Amino acid sequence: MIKVGIIGSTGYAGGELVRILMGHKDVEIKWYGSRSYIDKKYYEVYQNFFQIVDAVCMDDNMEALAEQVDVIFTATPQGFCASLLNEEILSKVKIVDLSADFRIKDVATYEEWYKIEHKSPQFIEEAVYGLCEVNREDVKKARLVANPGCYTTCSILTIYPLAKEGLIDMNSIIIDAKSGTSGAGRGAKVDNLYCEVNENIKAYGVTNHRHTPEIEEQLGYASGEKVLLNFTPHLVPMNRGILATAYATLKEGVTYEDVRAAYDKYYKEEKFVRVLDKDVCPQTKWVEGSNYVDVNFKIDKRTGRIIMMGAIDNLVKGAAGQAVQNMNLMFGLKETEGLDLIPMFP
Amino acid sequence: MIKVGIIGSTGYAGGELVRILMGHKDVEIKWYGSRSYIDKKYYEVYQNFFQIVDAVCMDDNMEALAEQVDVIFTATPQGFCASLLNEEILSKVKIVDLSADFRIKDVATYEEWYKIEHKSPQFIEEAVYGLCEVNREDVKKARLVANPGCYTTCSILTIYPLAKEGLIDMNSIIIDAKSGTSGAGRGAKVDNLYCEVNENIKAYGVTNHRHTPEIEEQLGYASGEKVLLNFTPHLVPMNRGILATAYATLKEGVTYEDVRAAYDKYYKEEKFVRVLDKDVCPQTKWVEGSNYVDVNFKIDKRTGRIIMMGAIDNLVKGAAGQAVQNMNLMFGLKETEGLDLIPMFP
Amino acid sequence: MIKVGIIGSTGYAGGELVRILMGHKDVEIKWYGSRSYIDKKYYEVYQNFFQIVDAVCMDDNMEALAEQVDVIFTATPQGFCASLLNEEILSKVKIVDLSADFRIKDVATYEEWYKIEHKSPQFIEEAVYGLCEVNREDVKKARLVANPGCYTTCSILTIYPLAKEGLIDMNSIIIDAKSGTSGAGRGAKVDNLYCEVNENIKAYGVTNHRHTPEIEEQLGYASGEKVLLNFTPHLVPMNRGILATAYATLKEGVTYEDVRAAYDKYYKEEKFVRVLDKDVCPQTKWVEGSNYVDVNFKIDKRTGRIIMMGAIDNLVKGAAGQAVQNMNLMFGLKETEGLDLIPMFP
Amino acid sequence: MIKVGIIGSTGYAGGELVRILMGHKDVEIKWYGSRSYIDKKYYEVYQNFFQIVDAVCMDDNMEALAEQVDVIFTATPQGFCASLLNEEILSKVKIVDLSADFRIKDVATYEEWYKIEHKSPQFIEEAVYGLCEVNREDVKKARLVANPGCYTTCSILTIYPLAKEGLIDMNSIIIDAKSGTSGAGRGAKVDNLYCEVNENIKAYGVTNHRHTPEIEEQLGYASGEKVLLNFTPHLVPMNRGILATAYATLKEGVTYEDVRAAYDKYYKEEKFVRVLDKDVCPQTKWVEGSNYVDVNFKIDKRTGRIIMMGAIDNLVKGAAGQAVQNMNLMFGLKETEGLDLIPMFP
Repeated sequence: MIKVGIIGSTGYAGGELVRILMGHKDVEIKWYGSRSYIDKKYYEVYQNFFQIVDAVCMDDNMEALAEQVDVIFTATPQGFCASLLNEEILSKVKIVDLSADFRIKDVATYEEWYKIEHKSPQFIEEAVYGLCEVNREDVKKARLVANPGCYTTCSILTIYPLAKEGLIDMNSIIIDAKSGTSGAGRGAKVDNLYCEVNENIKAYGVTNHRHTPEIEEQLGYASGEKVLLNFTPHLVPMNRGILATAYATLKEGVTYEDVRAAYDKYYKEEKFVRVLDKDVCPQTKWVEGSNYVDVNFKIDKRTGRIIMMGAIDNLVKGAAGQAVQNMNLMFGLKETEGLDLIPMFP
Repeated sequence: MIKVGIIGSTGYAGGELVRILMGHKDVEIKWYGSRSYIDKKYYEVYQNFFQIVDAVCMDDNMEALAEQVDVIFTATPQGFCASLLNEEILSKVKIVDLSADFRIKDVATYEEWYKIEHKSPQFIEEAVYGLCEVNREDVKKARLVANPGCYTTCSILTIYPLAKEGLIDMNSIIIDAKSGTSGAGRGAKVDNLYCEVNENIKAYGVTNHRHTPEIEEQLGYASGEKVLLNFTPHLVPMNRGILATAYATLKEGVTYEDVRAAYDKYYKEEKFVRVLDKDVCPQTKWVEGSNYVDVNFKIDKRTGRIIMMGAIDNLVKGAAGQAVQNMNLMFGLKETEGLDLIPMFP
Repeated sequence: MIKVGIIGSTGYAGGELVRILMGHKDVEIKWYGSRSYIDKKYYEVYQNFFQIVDAVCMDDNMEALAEQVDVIFTATPQGFCASLLNEEILSKVKIVDLSADFRIKDVATYEEWYKIEHKSPQFIEEAVYGLCEVNREDVKKARLVANPGCYTTCSILTIYPLAKEGLIDMNSIIIDAKSGTSGAGRGAKVDNLYCEVNENIKAYGVTNHRHTPEIEEQLGYASGEKVLLNFTPHLVPMNRGILATAYATLKEGVTYEDVRAAYDKYYKEEKFVRVLDKDVCPQTKWVEGSNYVDVNFKIDKRTGRIIMMGAIDNLVKGAAGQAVQNMNLMFGLKETEGLDLIPMFP
Repeated sequence: MIKVGIIGSTGYAGGELVRILMGHKDVEIKWYGSRSYIDKKYYEVYQNFFQIVDAVCMDDNMEALAEQVDVIFTATPQGFCASLLNEEILSKVKIVDLSADFRIKDVATYEEWYKIEHKSPQFIEEAVYGLCEVNREDVKKARLVANPGCYTTCSILTIYPLAKEGLIDMNSIIIDAKSGTSGAGRGAKVDNLYCEVNENIKAYGVTNHRHTPEIEEQLGYASGEKVLLNFTPHLVPMNRGILATAYATLKEGVTYEDVRAAYDKYYKEEKFVRVLDKDVCPQTKWVEGSNYVDVNFKIDKRTGRIIMMGAIDNLVKGAAGQAVQNMNLMFGLKETEGLDLIPMFP
């Protein structure tokens, strides 16, 4: 049994990690870290775990934790993991960091977009960007995995085959994304109150959302070009789900078949990426509760653009599910172990 | 492997049966019946099953089906199962009927509340009312199980220990129930359109909802008295979940400890019924996607009444989950097989 | 023009007061009080008022305010109004208090249920309980009106004619109420976050909600008996609306016609109370945004009980609308002035 | 008093017309047309109008109607108005058509996108496109006004000043729009059931939504160029509201101040278009129930693009409100009469 510790287990992503790991046959959760609820029963914070989890919330002492477990998931705010990490910890335990601390290779870019100083830049190079479908082999060998952001997972996987195959103009990309509210976390803020979100839709972080450079960097690697794009997130009145609608100019002469072939080339063997039938648009509800990414596209001959669409559950493939997928790879387990989650409808 | 046929597989309860049975290690679904979608791929009706279910929808020929499977689930409108059932079918295959056809022992009561003629009353006596926590031993021996209604499952299990132990005045029971909209089915009706249900709450079926006699009958068996009660359902703007708030007059001298002891007596060993900690009120979200029933109560000394509360997911414990639980019992499998579903939050 | 000051103008009830008063032809708002947002533009707090309200938020200095306005609305937490009120203020200005401070005539009851000391009990006797349909004549002469609670307005008006006419057993009343989330206020609490409320329903304040003694007191006046009842509120995933489902045992021999006649006797001339056609159940959506109370009932001959139902918009008839209705009466204006609000559907 | 007839009064836009016109002091509704509910009380279809509207639903005999009223609103499916219109009717009565029949000047384009034959192309030229802020003077003189679509109203007004002033590359426009569900109408379709829409978001009509040519035509007039653009609508789980997020490449050297000046030039005097303060993003909730359009923009210097955002209530400014605004202009009334609707929050 792999022993697991979770720091930040009482956030929404932390709770989802617990839900998924409870169904994982090779894993045992040893540490439910939660600075805010120390000594409280975990199920008192999340009553869905009543009679399922009996443990008590612990602090976030990473060094103590490293002695007791094989892998630590940090589902914590930006800066936390970077501030505590050191070589000794990394020599004892594998880490899947769900924050942004090790996602961006250029420290200056990180510090500019996140407005904080990076406390352990020495580990950035070694950290593997844990988008399993793209970096599978590297993840298998990693000590430290930077689990991708929710918007970024959805956006990158939606566009990746076209970037990789050079089918679109990389300077023409516009991503208009829509997210459920769990992405905003469990902090008590007026903006996230039921009455403020319900019956409402708005854009936010326009031109400056922090997932922008992460998407640009990864699509840059895929295409071999420097990429600048527009990314606009929107808050949607639903609990879970991200839909990314991405626009780009198709290169001259690219056909429906070319694009379809590109998607199939990269995703046909991928269990968690489903390229939908022609003309079927992804819906977030069809992936809810699961680790799937549903993608599809449509070409507009009138304008020469392609509209690519992708849908995920932000807490699963966009956070906890992908983290477990990474863990499976890191420990040589079956990649899908614990992730046979069928989407729940309705 | 137990071979399963589902008639009515494209309703919401049918879809949930598929979701649950796909995760059941001893079962294989052989027949996706759906009169409305014959020859259509099942996943085209429910895209969450894309790349998971490849089968095509079949008709609802029960005799043909009886040749091919070990158990049939009928997730069909009232009257359907009763109109097709015969001894030959029952001699070949076990049946879990999710409709109301065999729930009520008195044909006249059935016909009065459902306004249809019962077409096979000869099987009513043999049919076992499939509330597993109450009728476990009978279910194990049954050929035909009448799977309880959603409201009734929640209402009965909430009140059962007090009825059984004689702690409440059985003539004083009032059940005020609230249900998500999936309980109304997938039929295209104006009343169930998004804009009619959203931002709205209403009572319906006041004094004449069909689950009333079913609850009365079962609580009558439990208490050994004829029971008449008020049951008022409400439609709530959410997909899943039923909350029953039940009121009754406590018998003289009954204390908190007496009531708690009664709940513990019947439910302490039950995996799927969770008696919550003192003062914690059940919430439907805490059981969503799972087979749990969360119950609790509060005594009002001022009025001498007890307020009992129960929460279920109407599509799981209120339909498909309980049906699988019954199937497990009927086939001698572990009762919880395929039902280790952790509630999803948020 | 009547000059109006609002203390607590940036809560949900305060915002609704502004919305309604902006359409009132005899009124001018002179003071937007908000301790939390002093010096901020009011529209920056509520952007729906952009280019409609240009004022800046002020403090809550009641004495200064009394010099400048004719009427003060206090949409503030319990205890606030009672702690600041004095004879000098009351001699200069009329007050409509939307909090509970002056609703309950018995100080001990107030202090027991609200767990705070009452700071100006000397004004309780003079305060008029501002349920206009019941206390119209007294409101006209009042200096200080205690605006009823949201649940209480809905509950009392639903039951009032039967209590007054002696048609029900006053010891048998059970009120099961359901409220949208705006009733919980705009405070930043985890329990009121979108993801906690959405797709969920729960009871809360079971046996001890503070609106209980207020309902009991008023129904006691109506019936001439001491009344003890059960009141159970539930939180529903919608912004606005309260539905009260009330149960009582009908007195021997009371018929549908008797009950209907009682409702008509008290409400036929009331603009804001609509007794619906036979068998039509109230829905909160049909009164949303308006000052209406929709009521109806159904008799269950099997159990001898009556089910009474009432629906209001908690922010209008349950708070701001009723407050304006009270103001109209206090100043001799047409009672419906500014309140010709047609419910918005969908 | 202007006598009004509404054909299609029981659709959502029809109901909203009634709500608005009931508060219009110069208007009397004489005809509630509804083919589906002939002879039924209007309030039985929309119970929010109980005790407010006592009329009975009538058929859709346009000739009979033309004798009795001064203006007809047709809130009917595509093709209806065009199929009944003739010179005699138009000589007697003014018409505001809320369908698409007379919005597009080129018949071939209409027939291609709507897949129906246009039955009275002879009136297309005379019909005025009723986007009041753009075509105010023409509307004043019109007999026949084509009321703009909901998505188009929002999209065009969001982009108009930049198109008119030549600040953006007209070939670079991408509009990603999000709509509440009332835009899909009140027809009983599975796709619009509560459980299908709730907790879900999807794109639809990708590359072929019928509002596309309407937007292109109008922005073409504004810019003096032929315009081809991408328009992608999305269905959002809320009742009302459209948010348009529009992307375009700014022309070289255009600054924030230039853009802001363009918006102010066209909208400063417009009551119903509100250009928000810098960095404030429009939210649909802030215009709900009102005739406002909230617009704003943000420039991304990194990519050279501008992100323009606009929000409306699809049933008000996107349908009934704008129709009344057009009527006011056609009859020489104050343009805002009956439209002083303050947005409702929450």
